[in-house]
Order: sequence, then structure tokens, then C-alpha cells
Amino acid sequence: MRVRLLGSAAGGGFPQWNCNCPNCSKVRSGIAGARPRMQSSVALSAEGEYWFLLNASPDVRAQIESFEPLLPSKGVRGTGVAGILLTNADLDHTLGLLLLREGECLIVHATSAVRRALTDNLRLEEILSSYGGVIWREPPAELTPLLTGDGAPSGLRYAAFPVPGKLPRYREGSAVASPGDTIGYCFEDEKTNGRLVFVPNAAALTESVRGYLSGCDAFLLDGTFWSDREMQAVGAGTLGAREMGHLPIGDADGSLAYIGDLNVPLKIYLHINNTNPILCEGSPERQLIEAAGAIVGYDGQEFTL
Amino acid sequence: MRVRLLGSAAGGGFPQWNCNCPNCSKVRSGIAGARPRMQSSVALSAEGEYWFLLNASPDVRAQIESFEPLLPSKGVRGTGVAGILLTNADLDHTLGLLLLREGECLIVHATSAVRRALTDNLRLEEILSSYGGVIWREPPAELTPLLTGDGAPSGLRYAAFPVPGKLPRYREGSAVASPGDTIGYCFEDEKTNGRLVFVPNAAALTESVRGYLSGCDAFLLDGTFWSDREMQAVGAGTLGAREMGHLPIGDADGSLAYIGDLNVPLKIYLHINNTNPILCEGSPERQLIEAAGAIVGYDGQEFTL
Repeated sequence: MRVRLLGSAAGGGFPQWNCNCPNCSKVRSGIAGARPRMQSSVALSAEGEYWFLLNASPDVRAQIESFEPLLPSKGVRGTGVAGILLTNADLDHTLGLLLLREGECLIVHATSAVRRALTDNLRLEEILSSYGGVIWREPPAELTPLLTGDGAPSGLRYAAFPVPGKLPRYREGSAVASPGDTIGYCFEDEKTNGRLVFVPNAAALTESVRGYLSGCDAFLLDGTFWSDREMQAVGAGTLGAREMGHLPIGDADGSLAYIGDLNVPLKIYLHINNTNPILCEGSPERQLIEAAGAIVGYDGQEFTL
Repeated sequence: MRVRLLGSAAGGGFPQWNCNCPNCSKVRSGIAGARPRMQSSVALSAEGEYWFLLNASPDVRAQIESFEPLLPSKGVRGTGVAGILLTNADLDHTLGLLLLREGECLIVHATSAVRRALTDNLRLEEILSSYGGVIWREPPAELTPLLTGDGAPSGLRYAAFPVPGKLPRYREGSAVASPGDTIGYCFEDEKTNGRLVFVPNAAALTESVRGYLSGCDAFLLDGTFWSDREMQAVGAGTLGAREMGHLPIGDADGSLAYIGDLNVPLKIYLHINNTNPILCEGSPERQLIEAAGAIVGYDGQEFTL
């Protein structure tokens, strides 16, 4: 399968429109060692004909334009996007759906908990029904062929698994947390058997999540924050990483301590917040990532499995 | 006053993610004579300290990044944006509000009809209340000082006037048309008395709208479609320009026939759809625009009044 990072930043992107933290200031000034990033989203395909978006970021218009296989190739209107798979209902993962309204009916894979947030709070289904509409698909718990909207096989199998997370802030007042609020995905190429695991949000690495991460050829993992008090430290916010549903990378019990030992060929962090010091090449935190054999994902990064 | 076009395309931008019409195909191939455009939005300021966005496009993140005065200049978080003025509730004019959620409370000028669409259908107020929140301001019918969120004078006066338009498609099933659905704005610099008129959507040019257009130093006018059957002609849609609430530029009773005779120094079309032949430099339609002393607006265009 072919995998392309369309965006590698957390919500707000890098730089963020209203942020002047050292990182954002540095990337705006064009200093070497910090590159701009769009909001987290990934495109993948088994054979390059049918492409799936993992989450639909608010930057989806520029992201589609940045990657030729996603563009319409036949006829006056069309798209290379055969479906969209959501990991949660966060705005930085779902607002892109509204930007795809001009197309045909969207095929969106999402748990019932995520669908309820999008339907009850964002009114997304109602709004999209005035345009191309949306068809929901429930992600399977066991590896199952991933089909296109026409029911054609895509050459991929997929499974979803629960990941500890947090309700979107806009949903907090109207729902209680449920296991389907945040999921990860495992994808397997039917021909090569190459396996990708996608976990852009994780408040903790449970045994089940660790099982998926340790048993794949590549994973894309929540790299939102380096440390729990990172936002406060630069004066950019009042909430801690854990309060926002993100296990910090660099804490004693953080994700790096776990993934460093894993024998996985490609260990990639994405969904990186603008305050995270790993965004700067050469920073001590970036060096720790690289010393652990992991990679700070970047827009346009591509690999095959 | 200083005026900057942040985006000059209609909804979907240019090129549009799922469109392969001759124009979109041409701009993607990089052929000279067609330049990419973000979705319609304008920034203006009297003295360069307080900036106002005219409509909030889905491209607002890239648009703010494209224009230095809008970036945070003081402290870790901040913005040059003192308020947002909406002309209608169309998604290409309002989705950007959700992308500005990370900031402080948004000051949004909009008619009650537009607020109801955003509140009842898009649930925008409810969603933003979980973040920085929104404060609504009713645009005045007579020229009135335009204030910042703190109540400071901006150096601009503004007035709003009804423009024939159309309900957003997502609102059609739940409301009947009302005069506040679409408005235009007149801005006047308190020092120079320079006048800008902003009418990015117009289904017709009423006597009142003509009064504003003819009595200013510059206007930005609905340039969505050249002809009524343009979308059908290239196979990109089934609706006519007039059915979508846009007076075509080039029809016998179109807007060009009217504005060509006006003695206004700057006559600019914006909100240009990807199918519109005026997007291509040298096209016969573009030549007619230029022969009438008008300009096809472009991203980054700037002028002072």
C-alpha cells in the first residue's frame, strides 16, 4: 500500500493563525529547521486507484491539490477519494467533510459515537444532505475488506479498535464519554500483507493499542505534545496535554519510552501541536525522537508497505 | 483605508478540488494566464492597526498567513483581526469562523437573518461557545463608526444595505427568504472619506444597490458567473447562475452592461467561479471586462482609498 501524509500538524496547523510562540515565530521567519505543516490527515491506497482519506482536515482543499492522485482524472467532475475514515469527531478531523460538499455522496467510516457528535452537534448530516449527502459505514472490529462506494474491493483490509481519548470540546456538555469516541485503525494490504496502524489521538497506550502498534510495519502515532505542561510553559494555553486527551511523548511514562523498544520499521509521530519542540530540527527533543529510531512526520512524506 | 483581497474565487476556490473543467485543468497545469485563487474574502483597515475581515472563508488560515498585518504581533497569542463582517450565511463565507475558534471571542457583524441561519442550521454559536465564543453585531443601515471589540474607533464608518440574493442551500428547507439574507456594505474612511462598496453576491442590481455602486471610489462586485448557463455548458453543474442567486456578468442585462458606464476609479469583480472564462487572461470575456475599465480581482490585490 502507498501512504502519504497530507498534513502532520495538530488542530490549528503550523504555524497557527493566532500563535506567536517561539515555534510559530520561527517557522514564519523561514529559519531553517522548522517547516510549515497542514492539519493532520493521511491518504492511502493499495494500488493507487482508490484512495482513502484518514480524517478530513480543514486544510483538505489544499491537501487534495497537493497530491495528484487525489485530483479528478476522468470527466469534468470527479475525485480520487473513494472514502473517508474518521478516528474521532474533533473539528480538526471532520470540518473538511463540509469542504467536500460539492462532490458526490461522501462515504464516511465512523463509529456511532462519532456519527452522533457530527449529527447532533455539528448538524453535518443535515447540512451535507443539501449537497452531495453522506453515507455512513461502521468500521469493523476484525480485519475486513475495505470497499469503495460502489462496493468494489480496494485491495485493503481494515479494522478499528478503541483508543483512550476525549470527547470533542463542543460535545462535552451534551454527551458522556463512550468507547467509540476515539478509535485507531489497522490497514492491511491484501497482496503484500503490509500493515499500517493509525492512532493520531491517544490519551494512553492500552494493552490493546500496544498490541496493534507492536504488530505492524509502520505506525502513525499521536505526537501532539512533548510534555504535559507544554502549552502553559509557552503561555499559549491553560490545559495540560493529558486534560486534552493526549499522552505526552517525552514524559517518563510517555509514548517514546514505549515505542523506542519496538521492532517496527517505521515509527512516525504526527498530529503535532505548534508548541511541540520536536518541530524544530536539532532540538534536544527531536534528537531523542531520532535516537529512538522514530520519525517526526512531515507533510508530503510517503512510503509503501 | 487599505484594502487587500485575501481570496477572489467563489465557493470551492480555483481550482476546485473535484473539478477538471478547462479552467481548473489549465490552472493546475501551470499554463500562464490562469492563477490559483482562494475563496472570496477581503481585509480592510483605516490605519493598519485594526483589520476587519469581509466574510470568513474556509481558506482563512492560509489567508491570514498570507498577509502579515493579520498575524499576531504582540504576546504569544493574538491577531490583527478586530472583527468579521458577513454578507450572507453561505458556507464559503462563514465556515472560516469555525477555524478561528482557537482565538478570543469573535466579533461578528451579521443581520438577524444570517445569524439565524448560522445558529439554527449550522449550530455555529453553540459550537463556538465551547471555544472563544462569538458576539454578534447588527450592521447599521446608516453610516456609523465601526468599532473594535473593545469599543475603540477603527477610523472607518460602515453601513449595510439589502441585496437581492438567495438562501444558502442548507437553509432552504427550514426558512423563507427575507431581506437580510444577503447584504452589501459601504465603508468610509473617516479621514480620507474614501469609500468602498462590497457586494460579493447579487442576484440583481436594484436601484438601491446601483446607488451605492455609483457613489463610491472602489467597489468589489459579484463576478461569480459570466453567463447564466455556464455551469451546464462545461458539464460542471445543472443549475443556472440566476437560480443560484448570481446576476451573470456578460448577459445583455448583466452587471458589465451597467458598470461599464460608471465613473468609479476601481471597479473590481471578485467571488469568481472556477468555470468563469474571465479567469483566463486573454480570453474574449476577460478582454470585454478590461475594455469596460473593470478589473478581475486577484488574491493579494491591494489598494488604498
